[in-house]
Amino acid sequence: MSKKLVLQLPDQPGTHPVKISDTVACGGKDLWIIAGPCAVESEEQLTAVAQTLQKNQVQSIRGGAFKPRTSPYSFQGMGEEGLKLLNKMKDQYGLTVVTEVMSETQIPLMMEYADVMQVGSRNMHNFNLLKALGEIRKPVLLKRGLAATIDEFLWAAEYVLAGGNDQLILCERGIRSFDTITRNVLDLGGVSVLKHTTHCPVVVDPSHAAGRRDIVADLAKAAVGVGADGLMIEIHPSPDDSVSDADQALSFDSFTKLMDSLRPLAEAMGRHLGTEQRTSAVKTA
Amino acid sequence: MSKKLVLQLPDQPGTHPVKISDTVACGGKDLWIIAGPCAVESEEQLTAVAQTLQKNQVQSIRGGAFKPRTSPYSFQGMGEEGLKLLNKMKDQYGLTVVTEVMSETQIPLMMEYADVMQVGSRNMHNFNLLKALGEIRKPVLLKRGLAATIDEFLWAAEYVLAGGNDQLILCERGIRSFDTITRNVLDLGGVSVLKHTTHCPVVVDPSHAAGRRDIVADLAKAAVGVGADGLMIEIHPSPDDSVSDADQALSFDSFTKLMDSLRPLAEAMGRHLGTEQRTSAVKTA
Amino acid sequence: MSKKLVLQLPDQPGTHPVKISDTVACGGKDLWIIAGPCAVESEEQLTAVAQTLQKNQVQSIRGGAFKPRTSPYSFQGMGEEGLKLLNKMKDQYGLTVVTEVMSETQIPLMMEYADVMQVGSRNMHNFNLLKALGEIRKPVLLKRGLAATIDEFLWAAEYVLAGGNDQLILCERGIRSFDTITRNVLDLGGVSVLKHTTHCPVVVDPSHAAGRRDIVADLAKAAVGVGADGLMIEIHPSPDDSVSDADQALSFDSFTKLMDSLRPLAEAMGRHLGTEQRTSAVKTA
Amino acid sequence: MSKKLVLQLPDQPGTHPVKISDTVACGGKDLWIIAGPCAVESEEQLTAVAQTLQKNQVQSIRGGAFKPRTSPYSFQGMGEEGLKLLNKMKDQYGLTVVTEVMSETQIPLMMEYADVMQVGSRNMHNFNLLKALGEIRKPVLLKRGLAATIDEFLWAAEYVLAGGNDQLILCERGIRSFDTITRNVLDLGGVSVLKHTTHCPVVVDPSHAAGRRDIVADLAKAAVGVGADGLMIEIHPSPDDSVSDADQALSFDSFTKLMDSLRPLAEAMGRHLGTEQRTSAVKTA
Repeated sequence: MSKKLVLQLPDQPGTHPVKISDTVACGGKDLWIIAGPCAVESEEQLTAVAQTLQKNQVQSIRGGAFKPRTSPYSFQGMGEEGLKLLNKMKDQYGLTVVTEVMSETQIPLMMEYADVMQVGSRNMHNFNLLKALGEIRKPVLLKRGLAATIDEFLWAAEYVLAGGNDQLILCERGIRSFDTITRNVLDLGGVSVLKHTTHCPVVVDPSHAAGRRDIVADLAKAAVGVGADGLMIEIHPSPDDSVSDADQALSFDSFTKLMDSLRPLAEAMGRHLGTEQRTSAVKTA
Repeated sequence: MSKKLVLQLPDQPGTHPVKISDTVACGGKDLWIIAGPCAVESEEQLTAVAQTLQKNQVQSIRGGAFKPRTSPYSFQGMGEEGLKLLNKMKDQYGLTVVTEVMSETQIPLMMEYADVMQVGSRNMHNFNLLKALGEIRKPVLLKRGLAATIDEFLWAAEYVLAGGNDQLILCERGIRSFDTITRNVLDLGGVSVLKHTTHCPVVVDPSHAAGRRDIVADLAKAAVGVGADGLMIEIHPSPDDSVSDADQALSFDSFTKLMDSLRPLAEAMGRHLGTEQRTSAVKTA
Repeated sequence: MSKKLVLQLPDQPGTHPVKISDTVACGGKDLWIIAGPCAVESEEQLTAVAQTLQKNQVQSIRGGAFKPRTSPYSFQGMGEEGLKLLNKMKDQYGLTVVTEVMSETQIPLMMEYADVMQVGSRNMHNFNLLKALGEIRKPVLLKRGLAATIDEFLWAAEYVLAGGNDQLILCERGIRSFDTITRNVLDLGGVSVLKHTTHCPVVVDPSHAAGRRDIVADLAKAAVGVGADGLMIEIHPSPDDSVSDADQALSFDSFTKLMDSLRPLAEAMGRHLGTEQRTSAVKTA
Repeated sequence: MSKKLVLQLPDQPGTHPVKISDTVACGGKDLWIIAGPCAVESEEQLTAVAQTLQKNQVQSIRGGAFKPRTSPYSFQGMGEEGLKLLNKMKDQYGLTVVTEVMSETQIPLMMEYADVMQVGSRNMHNFNLLKALGEIRKPVLLKRGLAATIDEFLWAAEYVLAGGNDQLILCERGIRSFDTITRNVLDLGGVSVLKHTTHCPVVVDPSHAAGRRDIVADLAKAAVGVGADGLMIEIHPSPDDSVSDADQALSFDSFTKLMDSLRPLAEAMGRHLGTEQRTSAVKTA
């Protein structure tokens, strides 16, 4: 197939930042941090998370309202109610909202609630969804499929860009390997290739790569070292009680410690961690 | 997660056949053969295919009307027109029709045209699609994701079964490996495990596993040896001119030769190749 | 690297049989069956095995005297005493002996006892060993590395052939994948490629591929279907008591049943299972 | 198998440094840098390399004298002459020498010339070699097999430690994956697990992981971020003319630039890059 990808670097090399809100962008000097629980569980949970994010100058909250689960008998998410809770956090804590869209039929609903629409790994090759996301004009965060080559990842990205939506952020979250000691293998070489060959910002999700919380901080530091434009990290008020992905969520204390340890690394890389004023219109702070 | 899978073998072990038409089933003594082009291209192409199938006592024709393609710039399929052509073959040659459904939004259309709805590898984890297919009452052929474990495959199957649709056929089509000498690695050990632990019929697609036509026949024989209930094989009137998957499609001659060589193997396995009277109401034969 | 491989098919296509003894060969019409325990444990064990092999017209006995073990604290083999026991079986039951050589320093010892020197998967890239085996004039059975590409496998084979030893048999024994439901994934597509592109006989080890005895028979049948020239199968008088690889060894009953079920398949493939007169000079029979 | 590994962390957690020379260690505050060509080619080549290392405070020179090559027809190394050249660099530039041992039969020769004996990826499961290295009293740098799990890597390490040689350094150099856009995938999550669960220092080889020079620097930074104790980097006076691994070797300029960019990162991690006084008895400096 011919390789004239829209997302390949044109005459002007370098990353083209994607605007998340009036004050938040991904791909500039500020590292874009997204944190939150795997799934939205309750207002109490989300409020505790949001307060922790605000303290750490984190720009965006994540949380699944519709959850792709391996088993049909696992918790499938709170649905629209979850989206409403995420929006409440946005209003109260000035956080932008990242949440997953699982089907093109959910897009109209998501347009109301999400600042960034996430496509999960399992849907990276859901071409009907990708085409539909090419038609909208909102940032899309596309996660790499867990056994997708970088080339396939670029072609999936191309589906969105070819539709005219150039607000695309790529996310590496670990690929499947033969070793089960970690849930996946974080492919930071892939991140480097993406940074050198496309104009899209690239963020890293060390939590899903690790699948175990003891190495999330190390992998987050490695991601900053490799030159990622942001990090997506799972946190939970009480990680062991998380309804999903309990093994990999960080506690608030661990997360705060991680943010503190990332700051000097970010500076050494010529970046800044987080954004002081996170949204243009924060009602409460 | 608890492992009370609907598809696990209950008191009565063995494969429960799935009925495709009044005269065709998958999972009984007759091996179910599905053959045809990767994509429906024209009436001429499909007619030539159908005549070859009829001569070889093949029960079902395959052909994509909606095609999941890595690149957005590749041919995306003929759409509904392709479905109509497939149905014409059904009427004229007594073939049952297997074709891919890519999104839950296409199901109503497919209900009119398809005898078996195929879920492709890339959509094995498209949970919204799987849930919707659990609601219908037509056979579903679920292909294993190219990096899905057998456990994940079973859970995806469970999404369909949990919805109440028990007409489910599993299909192994090769998994991704580190070696590029074949497109994928056909996991016949996985087929054996599926046969021993579930009541679903299991078919094998040697064409997508191989990705090169010189080894398709050998893999088809291996699949019969391992105990598969059927085979899905790509053929094309002029393989090198195929709009997609040109490298793996068999010519009509090679396909006929393969069918002939499979017959004694099938007999040695206590099976029969193909079905003489393929549909109850064949208009022309 | 240039691809003028000695083992690539020259003007005369087809498999060139390798002579194991005056009456046994691999690569001709007779399928070459090697069976035995993972490790030689005792004379009682080996005698019981040898009698079972004799009854089933199996040509060769296998059994490790030097064992490559993941842990240094696991049983490392009986050493030379094990080799002597294997030779006793040869004398008493007319079986040819296949056993593993782990280092070039063991070759002189092996020359006395082994009819076929096996190179294990973990040593496929032990180039010093491969070079030394190129210098001898005895059959070598080279197992594919568990993550070696077919190309790398061919180059490893080339090390032996380039030294002047053309008595080389290739063995597929499963490759490493992301799925742990089977120990490895048997790559029968790779076997087909090897058969079509080299003049070396190719045998298959379904036991190590499976890692679980319930699917060994199915995989053995698949291997015959794909066109393999032989099978290597682990059996044990009391599988659960095996000092190594207990999960995959077949009982004598299961093995006999497997041999019986392979016969019609072999015939359907134009082959014959086993060899009636297995060695030229059998002392007892 | 029981998991009482000698190398598991005992009561005193943390990394136990391995002494390379009187002034150089691996596992302390100083990051241990090893650089040099894939293969020793000539005195001119090695001298140019050594001068570049000296300027950048690099502690050790690497270079293969015996080369494990996929093809028997590729350059197999200069042998002992190469070892002598490495030693000349040691004398003249105060560099410690890291070079690969391919067989237990080479150990006596290596004892004369090498400060650190490297076991390559392809030999990680060469148990005869590992056992022999357990008997010596010199540092061993053990590279992870390209498809070895972390558990298997630990057991291979245990072979050396069980023999009584506790001067062991582990090296992650990328694992095999389905994607060919990089040669291997650098498993920094594995590095983190090794650091948290063993007392061995862990170094990273970004060059073999990358297989392409444009991303070596990014991966080196990631390795420092994850907490590695050192880096092994391929450099060459004229990378494109390298007799092996030409695609991944850095030029001297690129290497110097990389060292400069690593310094602030190392400081941010509480480490120091290189060692000012590299050996106790440097003849020329």
